[in-house]
Amino acid sequence: MIQLDLIGIGTGNPDHLTLAAVRAINGAEVILLPDKGADKVGLIDLRRTICATVLTRAVPIVEFAMPLRDGAGDYAAAVDAWHHAIARVWQATLAQALPQGGRAALLVWGDPALYDSSLRIAARLMGQGAALAVQVVPGITSIAALTAAHAIPLNPLAGPVMITTGRLLRAHGWPAGADHLVVMLDAGGAFAALDPAGITIWWGAYLGMAHQALEHGPLAAVAPRILARRAALRAQHGWIMDIYLLKRETGDASW
Amino acid sequence: MIQLDLIGIGTGNPDHLTLAAVRAINGAEVILLPDKGADKVGLIDLRRTICATVLTRAVPIVEFAMPLRDGAGDYAAAVDAWHHAIARVWQATLAQALPQGGRAALLVWGDPALYDSSLRIAARLMGQGAALAVQVVPGITSIAALTAAHAIPLNPLAGPVMITTGRLLRAHGWPAGADHLVVMLDAGGAFAALDPAGITIWWGAYLGMAHQALEHGPLAAVAPRILARRAALRAQHGWIMDIYLLKRETGDASW
Ligand SMILES: C[S@@+](CC[C@H](N)C(=O)[O-])C[C@H]1O[C@@H](n2cnc3c(N)ncnc32)[C@H](O)[C@@H]1O
Ligand SMILES: C[S@@+](CC[C@H](N)C(=O)[O-])C[C@H]1O[C@@H](n2cnc3c(N)ncnc32)[C@H](O)[C@@H]1O
Repeated sequence: MIQLDLIGIGTGNPDHLTLAAVRAINGAEVILLPDKGADKVGLIDLRRTICATVLTRAVPIVEFAMPLRDGAGDYAAAVDAWHHAIARVWQATLAQALPQGGRAALLVWGDPALYDSSLRIAARLMGQGAALAVQVVPGITSIAALTAAHAIPLNPLAGPVMITTGRLLRAHGWPAGADHLVVMLDAGGAFAALDPAGITIWWGAYLGMAHQALEHGPLAAVAPRILARRAALRAQHGWIMDIYLLKRETGDASW
Repeated sequence: MIQLDLIGIGTGNPDHLTLAAVRAINGAEVILLPDKGADKVGLIDLRRTICATVLTRAVPIVEFAMPLRDGAGDYAAAVDAWHHAIARVWQATLAQALPQGGRAALLVWGDPALYDSSLRIAARLMGQGAALAVQVVPGITSIAALTAAHAIPLNPLAGPVMITTGRLLRAHGWPAGADHLVVMLDAGGAFAALDPAGITIWWGAYLGMAHQALEHGPLAAVAPRILARRAALRAQHGWIMDIYLLKRETGDASW
């Protein structure tokens, strides 16, 4: 039996780790670190730093190469094939690291429940009969990191907030039902597809990291600046992760 | 000048504290603990325990009585009056504790951006010319605590999720735009107002605490059990905080 801890580590600042995460990392018999390839080399370095900083005992660390998602073709089929490939890598890595079973820790960016595939991959393995039990240690999300950096509330007073992706925003525009909208997983500037009238944006990239970048203001005024800055930062660092909160002044929200 | 740190402390488990929160608590010249009255006595005890556990130096702790919100009459007016009253208490407490200015820490449940009034109250004081600077330390939300306890993802694969309140769900039914819905601040069983066909619920109360309670399953089957258990727990402890994720099988989502 393998006990797999999915440990939320926050979004780049090692101080985002919770005391529970520190405890779980130290309680593991092996720590798995996903390596997302040369273009995101800073991310595995950060996970290595986190382990080096918080480990109070010697726990073996195993790095494994994360399969890449096929960017072309049908989206759902590509994700399914990708999850299948990750599940196989996990299974092989766990079998080799813990042949007699035991406790493994996987460090997950942000919180494991938010736009992350680890829980789905664990469910897939369990569905195939793997002797696996999963435990989740909650983490600081990039949403909380964004609102903290700007010192703003997430929701309108007593009102709803929607969390969505750049892909959906680009494809369908502002969704019904909420005047506060968080956009994640944006390949770049989906907000530019909106009519900016009455919309305010709070944008953040590399939240929690040394090169954190923030912008905010009326969308019409700051959109060009964000697009230019995003492109420059991406060129400089080789990768970027950004997130933003949009607030619409007068909504046609259905409630 | 007063530097006010709004420090997210998670939802009841002292191990939800981040290393940044521990650092900010220890860096304060005074710690403010809101006392929400006799019916929530466990909550101030918990904040006291957190301070006692993580403080590595002697920092004065000042407890202040939180004004109560007027439950009757117009909602917006009642909230405005309530925020006004809290702002006055903060101002008086800070002026007395830090007459020369300095750094104060306020421990905020969960994450300070999510359905919490602290940021609005600080903005109100700054708008009135108070010499106040605010910094936010992000915290584990009750949403992350819920999904971690159930080991479930928050969002559908690449899809949106909406966060709303019990009041809105009861008043308007299932909102447009999302098939995953988080409901917070529910005075009791707003889900019972929905047609349960095709809906699954993951419910949690006192998340992160010793008496954490969980239920999940098809809404039709588990709704009566949750309502009964909620009433019994509330009677037993004198108060309850609960949250749930609803997932709708076939949506008429507009996107
Ligand atoms: C695959 S999702 C993982 C989210 C993560 N589980 C969380 O809780 O935030 C990656 C997306 O999260 C957001 N994100 C994560 N970390 C970020 C950071 N440090 N700065 C800005 N955005 C971030 C971006 O929108 C990015 O496209
Ligand atoms: C005033 S809001 C504060 C939310 C908090 N800032 C957060 O980040 O979770 C209070 C609501 O949060 C949810 N909540 C907070 N702590 C909880 C807990 N330990 N268990 C279940 N629900 C909780 C409940 O829906 C409750 O009505």
